[in-house]
Amino acid sequence: MNATVLFSGGKDSGLCTLLLEPFFEEIDLVTFTFGHDQAWMVAEKAATALGHPHRKIVFEDGVLDKALEILMSRGFPNDALNYVHSFAVETLAQDCEFVADGTRRDDRAPKMSYSEIRSLEDRMHMQYLRPLAGLGGKTIKAMASRFLDFEEMLSEKYPASDFEIGLRYALAKRHGQKEVDRIFPGNHMHTRIIRRKRFVQKVERQEDQACQGIQSES
Amino acid sequence: MNATVLFSGGKDSGLCTLLLEPFFEEIDLVTFTFGHDQAWMVAEKAATALGHPHRKIVFEDGVLDKALEILMSRGFPNDALNYVHSFAVETLAQDCEFVADGTRRDDRAPKMSYSEIRSLEDRMHMQYLRPLAGLGGKTIKAMASRFLDFEEMLSEKYPASDFEIGLRYALAKRHGQKEVDRIFPGNHMHTRIIRRKRFVQKVERQEDQACQGIQSES
Repeated sequence: MNATVLFSGGKDSGLCTLLLEPFFEEIDLVTFTFGHDQAWMVAEKAATALGHPHRKIVFEDGVLDKALEILMSRGFPNDALNYVHSFAVETLAQDCEFVADGTRRDDRAPKMSYSEIRSLEDRMHMQYLRPLAGLGGKTIKAMASRFLDFEEMLSEKYPASDFEIGLRYALAKRHGQKEVDRIFPGNHMHTRIIRRKRFVQKVERQEDQACQGIQSES
Repeated sequence: MNATVLFSGGKDSGLCTLLLEPFFEEIDLVTFTFGHDQAWMVAEKAATALGHPHRKIVFEDGVLDKALEILMSRGFPNDALNYVHSFAVETLAQDCEFVADGTRRDDRAPKMSYSEIRSLEDRMHMQYLRPLAGLGGKTIKAMASRFLDFEEMLSEKYPASDFEIGLRYALAKRHGQKEVDRIFPGNHMHTRIIRRKRFVQKVERQEDQACQGIQSES
């Protein structure tokens, strides 16, 4: 049983991976890129630190154009983020039975509605997993910190393979920083995984092993 | 860092526990009971199988009366389930920083709204975790099956320490089975954990350990 995680290299998609790890034989980390920058390499480094296979997928032609068009016409980022995210999830859903991402309880976008999720699962015969959907920001930080060293950085200075950052970069390049400042909130921050502190091993039950003895291991 | 899980002994609160296990030093399982039956002992057995400390809490006087009043007046179970569940979460929130439950993405009740959750967390200075909030039924079954043997059984025949079952029993006792049949859907099923198949060990990083070597352990 394998799972595929939409992976940016930050603490959220990292924690998503850690949560699923004990339950899947293999977890494949996938980073989408618009193909114009090297930000996906940040995710590749983080995937190596986590210890899972990683690949990148370049969005097909037209996805960025349509996303920028949505951005410019709406004047706020949510619809464009939802479009790009849904496209990525649907792309993975074509070949993977379990597709997961690090979208959180408190995120406003990207977010698929309940009926969009049910429709996706029914149409594509797959399961879409949001392991962070029931966790608040403080919990996510505390849980991720148990396993990961990560740093928080200003997105304008340091690139990352996060959809919002990808759209900001592309918009600035094509239409100028003024358009970014008009559409996106300022001082966007993201996290980047530096190092993994702990690993998890699954241990098959041995009848003479006391439960408490195993549990107290940390 | 400890977490407390609202625990019925079924696969959902069991999977909730398994998901949190690698991230918390101790996980305490708590089962609420109306005090009129021994169904909580099913949860105690399941807790022993999982390998975590367990305790029961008897709802304070009046909670059952109010829940039955809501049931009878509304004529459907959701509001009463929400009342009992919120009461249990708020009780745990008084002493525990991280309170979790096994409520699922596809559950209609019990379910707290987003603003109720934020209000709870702010008022009580705690975090409320729903690790199954982003997982569908098939995913939950597949993930739980990796670690647990569980059986599915008819709630009318076999008691369990699940809020819905507790309310059905109390309603039948006080107002007759006819009221149960009027208010609740028929043939309610629940699951019961029989045995744990696998354990998880956290391993501190050793610099000479290759990531892949550790990951391939299963």
